[in-house]
Amino acid sequence: MPVGKLYGVGLGPGDPKLITIKAKEILEEVDVVCAPISKVGRRSIALEMVKPYVKGKEILTLLFPMHTDPDILRPYWEKAGAEICNRLKEGKDVAFITIGDPSFYSTFINVMEIIRERQRDAEIITIPGVASILACFAGLNEPLVDKDEKLAVFPAEYGLEELEEISKFFDTIVLMKVSRSFDKIYKKLDKLGLLDKAVLVSKCGTRDFFSSPLREVKGKVDFLSMIILKGLRG
Amino acid sequence: MPVGKLYGVGLGPGDPKLITIKAKEILEEVDVVCAPISKVGRRSIALEMVKPYVKGKEILTLLFPMHTDPDILRPYWEKAGAEICNRLKEGKDVAFITIGDPSFYSTFINVMEIIRERQRDAEIITIPGVASILACFAGLNEPLVDKDEKLAVFPAEYGLEELEEISKFFDTIVLMKVSRSFDKIYKKLDKLGLLDKAVLVSKCGTRDFFSSPLREVKGKVDFLSMIILKGLRG
Repeated sequence: MPVGKLYGVGLGPGDPKLITIKAKEILEEVDVVCAPISKVGRRSIALEMVKPYVKGKEILTLLFPMHTDPDILRPYWEKAGAEICNRLKEGKDVAFITIGDPSFYSTFINVMEIIRERQRDAEIITIPGVASILACFAGLNEPLVDKDEKLAVFPAEYGLEELEEISKFFDTIVLMKVSRSFDKIYKKLDKLGLLDKAVLVSKCGTRDFFSSPLREVKGKVDFLSMIILKGLRG
Repeated sequence: MPVGKLYGVGLGPGDPKLITIKAKEILEEVDVVCAPISKVGRRSIALEMVKPYVKGKEILTLLFPMHTDPDILRPYWEKAGAEICNRLKEGKDVAFITIGDPSFYSTFINVMEIIRERQRDAEIITIPGVASILACFAGLNEPLVDKDEKLAVFPAEYGLEELEEISKFFDTIVLMKVSRSFDKIYKKLDKLGLLDKAVLVSKCGTRDFFSSPLREVKGKVDFLSMIILKGLRG
């Protein structure tokens, strides 16, 4: 029996209507749908987005705790990889669903690398999705980048030290994953005189989309937030 | 009569299946579809992608020559803006279709800014799409960025001078619009010792998707091409 195919399916930023036609069709065709969750018992946002397309299919919930240390996460990637390989060996096609785009800071990358090693004969197909940063700019009706402009994107906590130097080269900088060290980021931007060029956006591409000048943001920041620095060289 | 709504609709990288459900529904609902062309008489790739959804609608072809100088392009943006405003005033809803994502190096941005000025009461709604760089990485089954990695994106011709310095900070750099000055870019990358980290990708997200180590690329390069530099800090 031939082994099944593995699909990494990007679902876009959260609005079920921003799923692509291809993603929808693949979800309707596969045998197994893998849905990531961050805590046992917690609902999978990705799974809720695709409910109408996956009725009657095997749903495999995969636990990936919210953490940044790859050494802590690796056993979870290994376990997910093993469970998926078992289905592929049975000839089942598997879709691993992911919010946003699978190539863009996604857990699918890590699991895919493990499956690529363990099940070399399995075909792996990535279906791109609308990345959340694109939905942010669509929500703001603002260009992300235009004409001759330069864009930089990185998780805020890994680039704060270099931010001053980087900001000299770029027109737009998107700082991802800002909720974890929000106060530190805020202070750094204030120190660099960048606070008035900064906008906080949360839950892009969903009905709860929220944006505010960073200076006016008080209190706790949602997990699905990013900070956009615009007009840096303008 | 209330004025119509303007939609900027991202169609994704070229595969009609990578259109979102939302984009499809909006195209089915609007009265007028604006399709950009780069030369009189030339077919619109965007329009061909959406043919099944726009039967019987008014199709407004808008000419935007391939050029980088905003002073040369402005009259074309103005003309497009005026034609769209005429429809909006008649109460018609208009969709401006664009390959990729409307916030990401797209002509929609320029036309939208004109309409925002001329027709302040018109609601403008941007529907994000799968940006072509995401489709590239999906096509390669490679992560664009992972965990702590940093990404930079810019049109190659505007960043060659600074490329050496920028490359120190980033893991992945995507050079857009490389066909126009391909030889110059190739030489620069060779000089910086970056040729072996460079991949050329063309026509992402279409059946003609093509990728090759940059070193092996000979001859003319397709207009829909970019160069990806990966593992720069690895």
